Amino acid sequence: MTISTLPASIAAFHVDASRADCPRGFVASGLACGLRKSGKPDLALFLAPAGASVAGVFTKNLLCAAPVTLSKRHLEASAGVGRAVLINSGCANAATGAEGDRSAADMAAIAAAAIGCAPEETLIASTGVIGPQLEVGKIRAAMPALADEASPNGLDRAADAILTTDTCPKAAQAHVTVDGRTFHVAGVAKGSGMIHPNMATMLGVVMTDAAVAPEALQRMLTVATNRTFNRVSVDGDTSTNDCVYAMASGEAGDFPEQVVADAIERVCRELALKIVRDGEGAKKVIHVSVSDALTEDEAEQVARTVGSSLLVRTAIAGGDPNWGRIAAAVGRSGAPLDMNQVVIRVGGLSIFADGAPTGVARERLAPAFAGPDVHIDISLGRGQADATYLTCDLTEGYIQINAYYTT
Amino acid sequence: MTISTLPASIAAFHVDASRADCPRGFVASGLACGLRKSGKPDLALFLAPAGASVAGVFTKNLLCAAPVTLSKRHLEASAGVGRAVLINSGCANAATGAEGDRSAADMAAIAAAAIGCAPEETLIASTGVIGPQLEVGKIRAAMPALADEASPNGLDRAADAILTTDTCPKAAQAHVTVDGRTFHVAGVAKGSGMIHPNMATMLGVVMTDAAVAPEALQRMLTVATNRTFNRVSVDGDTSTNDCVYAMASGEAGDFPEQVVADAIERVCRELALKIVRDGEGAKKVIHVSVSDALTEDEAEQVARTVGSSLLVRTAIAGGDPNWGRIAAAVGRSGAPLDMNQVVIRVGGLSIFADGAPTGVARERLAPAFAGPDVHIDISLGRGQADATYLTCDLTEGYIQINAYYTT
Repeated sequence: MTISTLPASIAAFHVDASRADCPRGFVASGLACGLRKSGKPDLALFLAPAGASVAGVFTKNLLCAAPVTLSKRHLEASAGVGRAVLINSGCANAATGAEGDRSAADMAAIAAAAIGCAPEETLIASTGVIGPQLEVGKIRAAMPALADEASPNGLDRAADAILTTDTCPKAAQAHVTVDGRTFHVAGVAKGSGMIHPNMATMLGVVMTDAAVAPEALQRMLTVATNRTFNRVSVDGDTSTNDCVYAMASGEAGDFPEQVVADAIERVCRELALKIVRDGEGAKKVIHVSVSDALTEDEAEQVARTVGSSLLVRTAIAGGDPNWGRIAAAVGRSGAPLDMNQVVIRVGGLSIFADGAPTGVARERLAPAFAGPDVHIDISLGRGQADATYLTCDLTEGYIQINAYYTT
Repeated sequence: MTISTLPASIAAFHVDASRADCPRGFVASGLACGLRKSGKPDLALFLAPAGASVAGVFTKNLLCAAPVTLSKRHLEASAGVGRAVLINSGCANAATGAEGDRSAADMAAIAAAAIGCAPEETLIASTGVIGPQLEVGKIRAAMPALADEASPNGLDRAADAILTTDTCPKAAQAHVTVDGRTFHVAGVAKGSGMIHPNMATMLGVVMTDAAVAPEALQRMLTVATNRTFNRVSVDGDTSTNDCVYAMASGEAGDFPEQVVADAIERVCRELALKIVRDGEGAKKVIHVSVSDALTEDEAEQVARTVGSSLLVRTAIAGGDPNWGRIAAAVGRSGAPLDMNQVVIRVGGLSIFADGAPTGVARERLAPAFAGPDVHIDISLGRGQADATYLTCDLTEGYIQINAYYTT
């Protein structure tokens, strides 16, 4: 895919949503250390060269897991210069008290020793069952092999090892050429699968070989996360373990900050889309785009209200061209709209304008609600700002997974 | 049921959640005028004596229906003195443009003519399909019979005629004796059944024979609605047609304002509970009580976050004693809590305290999650304020009703 409106200096902007390879300077690995009872891969290492910039965005849930607390502290202590991200699945190390804090510190120390860096130069994350203590011994035993196996070709295995209830690994990358030189952004993620006693955990790791200072990398990651991972919803719950990390090796040299920021955001957007498409029970992705808002916040408020409406999501599960539910969700968003200025389109067909349904025939509308991607576009008629929000249809499968499968 | 902590002057406070009769001065009726294709009752009249106080609380959805806009105007024009509430089911008269506005005005004029009052002394409401025009001719034709049949014994029929997808009528009343004199509050409601192309409509009518000035009645109704109807959720969507009306005939004389306010709130609470219990697909009612908050708003924020969590609601659908989902919802509520001070109980059993699960055995917890009523109590350890929130479990039945039954 190539962006059509490139600045003159950008020769090419290629996004590959099918896979990701390590950018220059990075190595990665993944293996099964025994934390997951299924024997599936459960330990992943993402390793940057010395002096790399690192950044992190964390769950806002007050009940946050030990690895989150520790990694925040490491980011501060290292001033955003670090070497590694170590992630385990199979155990969230959340609500585990003082012992959990010690396990998180041990996990970071084990990574640091294997790599040969200070513990503060490591970031960690855990995902899986909430409550049980982390079996750090298994991580310690597996760490030498994990570090040995780390290679430029290891990103696939790392992407596999961070999964829990996901049905497929999630990776994406972008290659951007500016003035004859190319930088590379690659990312992997796991989605918000939630089966008792697991919690929803959204994890992401984004790497680039562009040179980016720590503060700039943190800024780029925060903006990209706010616009992508924070604008997807499978069920609206925020986990105790969510985090997204970024690392920049600098091996491809300097590039304009906005171009790197755009590439990071594009990779995060592809990963976010994969998370929604893999939502529990999901059969359709719902793309809600709000335009002509006064501010981006206002646009997001409307997009979020529509995207999280159970009535909208169930209607789309049933392929039901129900304009009224969409219009009512817009009306209750809290934004000070003039409903007579609002235009709602589904699949490009105008269904609501001038404060009333347009009367487009049900038969014409049905196909717009029928496919695996449903596009809802809402123009507020108030300004120039816009925002998008991704969600999935709400199906009986979601209820079954979350209510019955595990009791 | 009798409240145990009565002020000395109150001899008795009886709440009857099984039925409601007209308070002194009121008559009511209900019949089928042909708006509902099923032939079920679809037109209800609630009639007060001349000079009664009236009040109303309306949907905050910007996309509000013609009867809502009209009734707000009537309440203002009449300064809260009125005679009647006329409600039809089978058609929401929402998103119906200028013709819908004319139909709403006609509907009020038809009621006024039959009763012999000014149109401004009437309030109206409509519930049912959104989009189609209201067939006012059917209301005009039925109005003489509806007015004729209005009687002190007609509240049952009126309660039936306001239903749409509800599976049962909803009525409750309170009799309160103060210093040897008794006043009576009676209410009926319909719940938030939502089947395409219907919208969720919550309607309520509360009548009392206590003497209450219009401003006081409006105040009481607003507070009671905020604490009861506005703290229930079946799916979080707000309809275009929601409204609650109150009327006070004055025939039982004056009573202390707080006592009347309490009685109105108690009746509204019983009606709200019935709405949740009749929620689409609901098998269990979830009672979320938050105590020891700094403010009532803070308590409500936490209660609402827990009560609207899809993960909590699906866990309870499955009878799954999943403390982690409740604790995580508390943590993401946005209230500035110290999670170490938070205590969470389910069915009286402490499941989370001191920032960690209490380790109560799953077998002991299971019964608390198993019954038709699940009680979640959350102490925030910050102050004296509290709030309750009612919701229902989220089941496959909800999805089926809202996604598939109608396409």
